[in-house]
Amino acid sequence: MAERAVCVVGSGLIGGSLLRAAEKAGRTVWGTSASAGTAAQACTAGFDVTTNTDAALHRAADSDALVVLAVPLPAVPDVLRRVDAIAPTCRLTDAVSVKVAVADAVHRYAPRARYVGGHPMAGTAESGWAAGDAELFSGAAWVVAADDGLDLDVWRDVAELAWACGARVVPAATDEHDLAVARVSHLPHLLAAVLAAVGAGEPGDDLPLALAASSFADGTRVAGTRPELVLAMCEGNRDALLAAVDDALGRLGVVRGALASTGGLAATVKAGYAGRVRWSATREPLEHRVSLAGSDALAELREIGRLGEVVTGWA
Amino acid sequence: MAERAVCVVGSGLIGGSLLRAAEKAGRTVWGTSASAGTAAQACTAGFDVTTNTDAALHRAADSDALVVLAVPLPAVPDVLRRVDAIAPTCRLTDAVSVKVAVADAVHRYAPRARYVGGHPMAGTAESGWAAGDAELFSGAAWVVAADDGLDLDVWRDVAELAWACGARVVPAATDEHDLAVARVSHLPHLLAAVLAAVGAGEPGDDLPLALAASSFADGTRVAGTRPELVLAMCEGNRDALLAAVDDALGRLGVVRGALASTGGLAATVKAGYAGRVRWSATREPLEHRVSLAGSDALAELREIGRLGEVVTGWA
Repeated sequence: MAERAVCVVGSGLIGGSLLRAAEKAGRTVWGTSASAGTAAQACTAGFDVTTNTDAALHRAADSDALVVLAVPLPAVPDVLRRVDAIAPTCRLTDAVSVKVAVADAVHRYAPRARYVGGHPMAGTAESGWAAGDAELFSGAAWVVAADDGLDLDVWRDVAELAWACGARVVPAATDEHDLAVARVSHLPHLLAAVLAAVGAGEPGDDLPLALAASSFADGTRVAGTRPELVLAMCEGNRDALLAAVDDALGRLGVVRGALASTGGLAATVKAGYAGRVRWSATREPLEHRVSLAGSDALAELREIGRLGEVVTGWA
Repeated sequence: MAERAVCVVGSGLIGGSLLRAAEKAGRTVWGTSASAGTAAQACTAGFDVTTNTDAALHRAADSDALVVLAVPLPAVPDVLRRVDAIAPTCRLTDAVSVKVAVADAVHRYAPRARYVGGHPMAGTAESGWAAGDAELFSGAAWVVAADDGLDLDVWRDVAELAWACGARVVPAATDEHDLAVARVSHLPHLLAAVLAAVGAGEPGDDLPLALAASSFADGTRVAGTRPELVLAMCEGNRDALLAAVDDALGRLGVVRGALASTGGLAATVKAGYAGRVRWSATREPLEHRVSLAGSDALAELREIGRLGEVVTGWA
């Protein structure tokens, strides 16, 4: 049996990389772009990319392809309306960086779709088709939603697409994904912005920036990301991000209290050191080969993700 | 006239690099170490390093050398007592990362010394003699205190030592230095610690760390520094650091308020982006050649530092 065909909606950095990676893995792939210029660029590079989303979705319905939403969150509802009109029960996943908001939108706009959320944890400071790369997902974590009740056939499709692209699957409940990325992806952007603003200080006093060395350079690197990208990401994960910000505020408040009283920062500095050491230890995760046959298959998958481990194939 | 001889008290990363760099520049140099092992290592490498601080200071007094304190802040008072006993009016500078605390200690323990504070903004994650490098200060900013009333002859000595080591001089008032490094050097360590602890979260839930990618890796890099080094640095700059932490808390509180109400983060993200852009613009500072002859020489030097500019030689 030929492997599942893939219809990618959106051909920016992520969608464009996905088209390249899936084709390189031997899949039949086609895509869409809202921009005629991008579609033309992709066609010149030999890819079947059209501005006609309806036509791409008709082909997906006819061939039982896996449809991947690779558009920014604000564009998701409009695409889902077309999915519901043309390919209402299609196999559907996405590559958006928040998962609760997309799942809610699917529930509302394309409730019959066989949806399993996804999030490849890869990116660069660049964006657009030209920045795409068939190797973007190589070795990356690719979250695949593992909530109770979802369609295991589609779970299999999404996992196999992730592996075809060179990624490792991290199963996670939709809400746990959003809480996790708030802590390790969205909060870093906000703390970098805060640090950059504090370091820059008042106009007319450039002494702090003149003295800034590698600790400031590293701590503010992602503050140089285009603001609209950071805003789309952070504002789309508002509830989970609020919890992460509250945690950070509490810890920084402890620092404030310590400086104003005893002056001792050992607890804060040691907790940070321990966190960094724990992070280093997660860089070579245990790899699992799983079966989806058991009645608790999804619960077992979620537990793998909570342990920081990954799925790399079928048992 | 031969260039000023240099006596370096302390032969760790900074003192050891200073000995190497000054010797390479043709200076007569000798040093001290509290550790017999370090002194032996340095002597094997051809340097005149002794555990006998009194002898090194006698030689400095006899030859009118520039004495450089390159010991950790807690060791400064004991060394200053020996300075006051043996070389009470010597030309004195230091390489400690905070300046108010050292100036206070000089005022208390060696009040007759002709002291001009210094701070080469260079370092690595390593420490100790073996980690030293004659090129450590090459291209780095080297703060030289420029408070009213200090000895211009010694200012000249310290600036010329910095240039001999390949650094660029950033003149700054002692208190302004401490406020600046609190913002761009000490606060980054505390925010990295907070981020690492938030990302690590609760034991038993490794999903966040499994999903952590480059924004987390960069934002927590300095949280991997040995805790005792971070504590010595941050706790020695307590008052200035409190102001920087309050600024960060205020800005993070605004984020919190925005997430809890409108959800709009544009002001925060754009301020961070602007700060990062301003930092990039300071990487190639305007270079000045100055004279110390005018009656306002020190005020003019401080203004150069406030503009983020540097001094590279005499007019």
